Amino acid sequence: MITLSLVGIGSGNPEHLTLQAIRMLETADVILLPRKGAEKSELADLRRMIARDVLTTSPKVVEFDYPVRDANTPEYLDGVNTWHDALATIWSGLIETHVPPTGSVALMVWGDPSLYDSTLRIADRVLAKGMAIDVHVVPGITSLQMLTAAHAIPLNTLGAPVQITTGRRLRDHGWPADVDTVAVMLDGQCSFQHIDTEGVHIWWGGYVGMPEQILLQGPLSDIGPVIQDTRTKAREAHGWIMDIYLLRKS
Amino acid sequence: MITLSLVGIGSGNPEHLTLQAIRMLETADVILLPRKGAEKSELADLRRMIARDVLTTSPKVVEFDYPVRDANTPEYLDGVNTWHDALATIWSGLIETHVPPTGSVALMVWGDPSLYDSTLRIADRVLAKGMAIDVHVVPGITSLQMLTAAHAIPLNTLGAPVQITTGRRLRDHGWPADVDTVAVMLDGQCSFQHIDTEGVHIWWGGYVGMPEQILLQGPLSDIGPVIQDTRTKAREAHGWIMDIYLLRKS
Ligand SMILES: C[S@@+](CC[C@H](N)C(=O)[O-])C[C@H]1O[C@@H](n2cnc3c(N)ncnc32)[C@H](O)[C@@H]1O
Ligand SMILES: C[S@@+](CC[C@H](N)C(=O)[O-])C[C@H]1O[C@@H](n2cnc3c(N)ncnc32)[C@H](O)[C@@H]1O
Repeated sequence: MITLSLVGIGSGNPEHLTLQAIRMLETADVILLPRKGAEKSELADLRRMIARDVLTTSPKVVEFDYPVRDANTPEYLDGVNTWHDALATIWSGLIETHVPPTGSVALMVWGDPSLYDSTLRIADRVLAKGMAIDVHVVPGITSLQMLTAAHAIPLNTLGAPVQITTGRRLRDHGWPADVDTVAVMLDGQCSFQHIDTEGVHIWWGGYVGMPEQILLQGPLSDIGPVIQDTRTKAREAHGWIMDIYLLRKS
Repeated sequence: MITLSLVGIGSGNPEHLTLQAIRMLETADVILLPRKGAEKSELADLRRMIARDVLTTSPKVVEFDYPVRDANTPEYLDGVNTWHDALATIWSGLIETHVPPTGSVALMVWGDPSLYDSTLRIADRVLAKGMAIDVHVVPGITSLQMLTAAHAIPLNTLGAPVQITTGRRLRDHGWPADVDTVAVMLDGQCSFQHIDTEGVHIWWGGYVGMPEQILLQGPLSDIGPVIQDTRTKAREAHGWIMDIYLLRKS
């Protein structure tokens, strides 16, 4: 059977690679390396750099293009499912072509493969297509951990729960019930501007762990507009941005 | 100024150390190494093993005992606060005695320092006592990431939120509002037995990432009692247990 390893590589700082991640990449027969859209070429570059400079072995690196996501599919989920299916077809083809029958193939996954990431779902579809693979997950440092570490803050208050959510959810559903702390990811629109700022503190980070890292924090009412402005300018300057934030009600 | 680094070391597998964690420990002047209660000596042993076998340098290792937590303090939080304060006094004393004025001291933190961990709060108290330290956090793989990696499952369903909470909260407040996925930590009592099992799947792990690792998963109604039984026996056999689980409603 072929082993497929989904290897978390952290969210921008190659020093956040674990010993296990390095070993799994070093011992893989093949590394599949996605080239995403142009604006995220920095992410592909980091993967290339890891394969070239961090590993002490030279597994075969096979680059491939991401299919374009069809924004015209009417239902949001249908679009995602079709896209995952297209990716599973690409993975299967590449594995058949490049990986020996009992060999191993690795994929470098941004952050941790468990968190708002599609690779485990795509691997499920590869399995569903009838290819016999053994899926193995190597955890990686998430962007949320990079954010709390950079600000030197705890994720939770003492014994209290935390919700991890998306910008879309925060916008559509407001502050979630039952929690004083909310971590927000996948937010292209500064969705914090749609909630009541009363008593809310924000810790924000753009490009966390990367050379461009920007950190801002303060009462949401004061610093929210500063973050919006900073984000817009950074996005213009670099051509892309990834950001994440923690909100806490006192 | 003295640099105090809180270094996440992962939750049991030394291979989950990051390159940054290793570098921070290797370049520290002093490593403070807590000896906790007898039943957790395995945790202290792992820290000793890392200092002795993983690092390529030999920083001075200073072991210290944890103060006993006063279970008689009437208010739960008061007990915790008093205990954190006692630890801050111990840290300050050890730092003054062993660390040069512009030197660095590191502490190995289980998992990630941001997640249900008291070291950042203790560091705040060291600062509040007037000691000039620069606190630096190095993220580490959490037990929750170990759990999802071991089961090869995503933390969240597509675009949906996740709540991270404690056994106590689950017991006292039931299933939290607004989420289909709940990760439960710090649960000494299999608190999942107090919730409605209808449509709930559980992925459970004891000693995740450690040689003793036990994994169980299935519909909560079927597998819940098996987990309770397994947990009791494992705890008897080893003298201690740490466990964590993910619940998902379909
Ligand atoms: C598709 S999710 C992938 C998350 C990843 N699996 C993880 O563990 O962090 C992408 C989102 O993660 C966050 N993110 C990832 N890397 C980041 C970085 N370096 N700085 C800030 N946010 C980041 C952003 O919220 C972004 O929208
Ligand atoms: C005080 S908290 C520390 C959490 C840690 N900072 C982390 O990032 O995972 C201790 C709780 O973490 C979980 N835990 C830590 N290590 C574990 C392991 N190896 N296996 C299972 N659960 C673990 C258990 O729920 C335990 O009650």
